[in-house]
Amino acid sequence: MPVKLTAPDPASLLPIAGVRLGITSAGIKKPGRRDITLIELAAGSRVAGVFTQNRFCAAPVTVCKQHLDQMVQRGGDIRALVINTGNANAGTGEEGLRRARQTCEAVARLMGCATEAVLPFSTGVILEPLPVDKILPVLPAAQADLAPDHWSDAAHAIMTTDIVAKGASRQAQVGGRTVTVTGIAKGSGMIHPNMATMLGYVATDAAIAPGLMQQLVKDVADVSFNCVTVDGDTSTNDSFILVATGQAGNNEIDDDASADYAALKAALSEVAIELAQAMARDGEGATKFITVAVEGGRDHAECKQIAYAIARSPLVKTAFFASDPNLGRILAAIGYAGVMDLDVDTLQVYLGDVLVAEKGGRAASYSEAQGAAVMHEAEITVRVVLNRGPVNATVWTCDFSYDYVKINAEYRT
Amino acid sequence: MPVKLTAPDPASLLPIAGVRLGITSAGIKKPGRRDITLIELAAGSRVAGVFTQNRFCAAPVTVCKQHLDQMVQRGGDIRALVINTGNANAGTGEEGLRRARQTCEAVARLMGCATEAVLPFSTGVILEPLPVDKILPVLPAAQADLAPDHWSDAAHAIMTTDIVAKGASRQAQVGGRTVTVTGIAKGSGMIHPNMATMLGYVATDAAIAPGLMQQLVKDVADVSFNCVTVDGDTSTNDSFILVATGQAGNNEIDDDASADYAALKAALSEVAIELAQAMARDGEGATKFITVAVEGGRDHAECKQIAYAIARSPLVKTAFFASDPNLGRILAAIGYAGVMDLDVDTLQVYLGDVLVAEKGGRAASYSEAQGAAVMHEAEITVRVVLNRGPVNATVWTCDFSYDYVKINAEYRT
Repeated sequence: MPVKLTAPDPASLLPIAGVRLGITSAGIKKPGRRDITLIELAAGSRVAGVFTQNRFCAAPVTVCKQHLDQMVQRGGDIRALVINTGNANAGTGEEGLRRARQTCEAVARLMGCATEAVLPFSTGVILEPLPVDKILPVLPAAQADLAPDHWSDAAHAIMTTDIVAKGASRQAQVGGRTVTVTGIAKGSGMIHPNMATMLGYVATDAAIAPGLMQQLVKDVADVSFNCVTVDGDTSTNDSFILVATGQAGNNEIDDDASADYAALKAALSEVAIELAQAMARDGEGATKFITVAVEGGRDHAECKQIAYAIARSPLVKTAFFASDPNLGRILAAIGYAGVMDLDVDTLQVYLGDVLVAEKGGRAASYSEAQGAAVMHEAEITVRVVLNRGPVNATVWTCDFSYDYVKINAEYRT
Repeated sequence: MPVKLTAPDPASLLPIAGVRLGITSAGIKKPGRRDITLIELAAGSRVAGVFTQNRFCAAPVTVCKQHLDQMVQRGGDIRALVINTGNANAGTGEEGLRRARQTCEAVARLMGCATEAVLPFSTGVILEPLPVDKILPVLPAAQADLAPDHWSDAAHAIMTTDIVAKGASRQAQVGGRTVTVTGIAKGSGMIHPNMATMLGYVATDAAIAPGLMQQLVKDVADVSFNCVTVDGDTSTNDSFILVATGQAGNNEIDDDASADYAALKAALSEVAIELAQAMARDGEGATKFITVAVEGGRDHAECKQIAYAIARSPLVKTAFFASDPNLGRILAAIGYAGVMDLDVDTLQVYLGDVLVAEKGGRAASYSEAQGAAVMHEAEITVRVVLNRGPVNATVWTCDFSYDYVKINAEYRT
């Protein structure tokens, strides 16, 4: 039975005081497709982001980073996010930057704010000019649609090859007040972090000091979006944005060692992890959700290196697709992960709860039937115990099917 | 029209004086399959090898390296190679080492040489015990089959998921004598070098000083087998072995700066490159042969890094399969290759002879029709000109098709 994909119940996505969302259609790739999302943020909102490390970083990412820097310097607020699908505005040179700014200017005029108070995001085909002639005329319609309860619509509007929309909400007690966290994300291919992995937007009504926002967004990304891989390709456009509108009435969190910071981070991380796992479940062509947990390493880097070697291997991923306990491929991936002083004789490999390999070879207790039983599950955990240190790391991925090839061979046609 | 795959004409594979090959069937995976190859080397032959860097290196690789070291120390000759397909004897712990040595002992008894004069090789499924009970009884049949002109049979007998056998010969003038080089190789998946990439055996009748053999095998591997990737997976068993029987009558080459060394290296490299390219052409599910050339880099490492990022990207490879000039995926791969100070505004990307991208975006002269025309070819070159240094590097790969998934999902069943 393949992994279950379900879009969130629209009613489960809770409004965030200070955030309104409007959706419309510019027909960028397909006529009538709702491909423009405008997110309005109330004055006083804090915004921070982490972005792709790809050297061919897309024009909107460059503009986003510039606008965030400028507003931090002048102490101003980001007031709007504008997102289009169907075109990535990446690999578009100077003209791409100009068009990203042009979109921000148009939003700023509508909203009555500075151009630098608007952050642009694009996702879709690379190397094509952004069709601003289609986008600018429909921005008033997006504005007219603004409402606090349009999170689910927005989650649908930012999808590309995603099969289901991705969104989640949580509530937590922070400083004696109930704060709410709601997030949406898109992404199912070209997914591999060197940091954020897709488009992700998580908002909360909690109040938090501006100086803690960047650390918080990084802390949350590291345990969520930075733990997913679908195909090892890092997009030019990946962005993860954290918004805190400060309208929950809690005392502003200004200490990252406080219980309030920890409680807020936990709620944000739960939402972000749910979104990140939803991306792996919805990986292009995925039929299985795979968790790779590497335990007992000397440092985080070596645990991640081994986890990603397994999670990226096309041979391992096709074996999962076939439900074939061809576990040698997992051992091979551990071996070529690049941890050169790794002693393969002292590690253990588990498939689910089944001990598969130890002492450099197949475990004496292992039987093919045990392995096959686990491989037929829709959700599978591979656990590698290195026995050489105190550190653990987890990566989420999916299997590799005919449909991955089909989706990516036919994406533009 | 898909890439053309042709096995070498058996008559084109020239015998090497001092080398005889015998093939037989042990029925390791399938009854009747010719899966055992014995290669006998005359006394006085020099042998050197390069091997997988995978930490889960297979038992035969460990034994191979030990035997080579021991024979170098005691100044003895390697007299036989024994190769089985159908079982990799990898991930098999102490028992695997015992069975690899047991195979060498049996060959040594037959050939009347020391156990350490025999090198074992295995390829096939990982994590299954080597069936020595099937292999040992048929070794006399392999010996009875020994003949100088069995190179083509051997090329067939070492295949696993390969569609065609791989072999090549060259002749060159060295020290006033004609020397002959003949090589065979197998490999079409789990192909990515950290050095040699598969099983490859290249023999020559040239005479060369023992002290130069290791450098020569590395020099040849670096321009051939170390330039291929199919799926980025590095096997546990990869081995490339160079044999020089010394029977051509040339004065022994003892200077790596001599014209004779250069001439021999050139002939060996031609054979090895032909074998390496044959592996990419025959990549699992391949319909296209792709050359990725990165030019004008500061050093070899950054050129290789960018070339491999392109050659390994599942998104790039599925676009080639679809003949879709979705060139943004190539730019994205260049961007995430990890060359962090790369300036994407000063590089050019060519598809065949067509300038595709420059100044950080699509070239003004580029049209989709030009790109599509190149993408429909069976053999395609992607050229990235970095304009920041004097160094070039080339990598060969193939596209990524439904059949890659099919072959690897069904390999064991």
